[in-house]
Amino acid sequence: MTKQSFTPVSETGRQKLLKNIKDQIGNPTDSVVNLVRSIGDDCAVVRESEGQFKLYSTETFVEGVDFDLSFTPLTHLGYKLVSATVSDILAMNGKPEFLLVSVGIPNKVSTEMIHQLYEGLIKASDVYGCPIIGGDITASPGSMIIGITVNGSVSEDDITYRSGARPGDAICVTGDLGAAYAGLRILLREKSVWAQENNSEEFKPDLSDYEYVVKRQLLPEGRNDLIATLAEKEIVPTAMIDISKNTLQDLMQLIGDSGCGAQIYEAAIPVALETRAVAEELQNDVIQYALQGGEDYELLFTLPEKDVNALVNHFKDFVVIGRVTPKNEGFRMQMASGEEMHFDLEQ
Amino acid sequence: MTKQSFTPVSETGRQKLLKNIKDQIGNPTDSVVNLVRSIGDDCAVVRESEGQFKLYSTETFVEGVDFDLSFTPLTHLGYKLVSATVSDILAMNGKPEFLLVSVGIPNKVSTEMIHQLYEGLIKASDVYGCPIIGGDITASPGSMIIGITVNGSVSEDDITYRSGARPGDAICVTGDLGAAYAGLRILLREKSVWAQENNSEEFKPDLSDYEYVVKRQLLPEGRNDLIATLAEKEIVPTAMIDISKNTLQDLMQLIGDSGCGAQIYEAAIPVALETRAVAEELQNDVIQYALQGGEDYELLFTLPEKDVNALVNHFKDFVVIGRVTPKNEGFRMQMASGEEMHFDLEQ
Repeated sequence: MTKQSFTPVSETGRQKLLKNIKDQIGNPTDSVVNLVRSIGDDCAVVRESEGQFKLYSTETFVEGVDFDLSFTPLTHLGYKLVSATVSDILAMNGKPEFLLVSVGIPNKVSTEMIHQLYEGLIKASDVYGCPIIGGDITASPGSMIIGITVNGSVSEDDITYRSGARPGDAICVTGDLGAAYAGLRILLREKSVWAQENNSEEFKPDLSDYEYVVKRQLLPEGRNDLIATLAEKEIVPTAMIDISKNTLQDLMQLIGDSGCGAQIYEAAIPVALETRAVAEELQNDVIQYALQGGEDYELLFTLPEKDVNALVNHFKDFVVIGRVTPKNEGFRMQMASGEEMHFDLEQ
Repeated sequence: MTKQSFTPVSETGRQKLLKNIKDQIGNPTDSVVNLVRSIGDDCAVVRESEGQFKLYSTETFVEGVDFDLSFTPLTHLGYKLVSATVSDILAMNGKPEFLLVSVGIPNKVSTEMIHQLYEGLIKASDVYGCPIIGGDITASPGSMIIGITVNGSVSEDDITYRSGARPGDAICVTGDLGAAYAGLRILLREKSVWAQENNSEEFKPDLSDYEYVVKRQLLPEGRNDLIATLAEKEIVPTAMIDISKNTLQDLMQLIGDSGCGAQIYEAAIPVALETRAVAEELQNDVIQYALQGGEDYELLFTLPEKDVNALVNHFKDFVVIGRVTPKNEGFRMQMASGEEMHFDLEQ
């Protein structure tokens, strides 16, 4: 037997591996009747009827990678994972309809804990109006594993891909960025203090000063409020993506998929005072939290100028952080210091 | 803080936990427009249009619980997991339409290995006519994790639940049982020999005598051939379930959900010669393989007598293993020895 070559997945990179898998699968639009979009956007898109699309997205969350049970109450975890999954439907300007949930349960997790997890899952499914209609449970050897599939719908007029941004559009973002990561840093610090105290049951971290950032980490909300306002005011973004992994990567993905460049202003990036306070306390650069933290589940979208003016009268919780430019101008960020940074666009 | 009670999931049991989760979720039929059936059958069922249903099922497969990479080639694994997932759609007499696949990748798994896995996934998706249209990849701390969601469709006239069996119906099963488990026993034996040889790379197990059973374990086929014949001949089973976990449990589930009893004949249970040979060699009871082995992905279904006669002319690969009886007659198995065994029905 000849030795196979072994390329670590970390060397290939997530985006490239996904692209290679997409190429390997080929184009199933020929075989699935009415398939509009497969791997490569937030959701797969299938035409349901004249002018109406169905949206499908699935995510698997693994203990030790995507969550840490030592500081995450299970009800919070259930809520967060539904927010994270539903966020992919919102990012295509869609309405979540229902969920399928599959849970891999290790021995250390009790029946009571599973019901706590479902309490959070159910609570979030109520908030987003998309009940759990099916699923499965199975054993897991070590880590807890939670797989969630969400189905949604959107009209052909409203669907928003990552690829529709055009030069001149404003780049907008809801809420504020980096708070979820600030919360994670605080929770990790308390966990390490707890470890120094030999995981004593007496240990009670005082998180009251960090309530906002801890809540953003443990109980994030998908921005269905923006989607509702867009629908009501009949405004359709030219492109949209949710900020799940890393703001800068997510933004570059949208810009790259749209075949454009971008000019971003550091000073315009929305950061909460509470997030700034944590970064200062931990002697970190808050702009790193905002641009590379991830898990904020805010929506990043592009709009022609006239639509920005129309939206701002009805929805206050967003800001413009830059402009879409022609591709040949590249991806540039004007730093608060006056310096300009250039980033390489992969596509 | 009061100590929480800790009931091991193994003590609660999978069926009971699923039932409790279903109760906790409540009845989402009120909130999901057109939801016909939620947790509790092979798939969730949603009415799509007059006379037409959509089917949804999701499963998560975890290394070390659901598969063993030491003797499972990744292409085979991909194929098997699609068969296993699609089988849930077939069990409702449906047609699989498309798949979403989510993979959790530990460090020990290379980019090349992921492409091998997808080779198997794609091959099976071709066989069942249901392309992969979406999904995700993520990191995993130790075990490889594969989540598959399948969407399917079925007409209102054809849909087959677990709960429709009626006293007098014949209990039928496709193919033969216990072969996948016999294959697993052989593979586990070779693995333990390999361990005794210190996992030497020179070790080459000779599995040629066990080709049939090993193939049934590594490359199972869902019975879409039965579903195609049923459609063509316009025969609709009164109830159906796929044999995934454990034949006896799956049968008792169908009978229990139908509110009936059953009389089964041990001598009628289909077992391949190759399966019998393995059980003899390993000094096991072959009927245990057939009734408790699982992973055969055969279909177990009930039919009125006249439909058995109609089907047998067009589809040869099934046998009648017993009859549905009134509930008060319980669940009885006539053993080859003449003895009669009674089993408790949970419902």
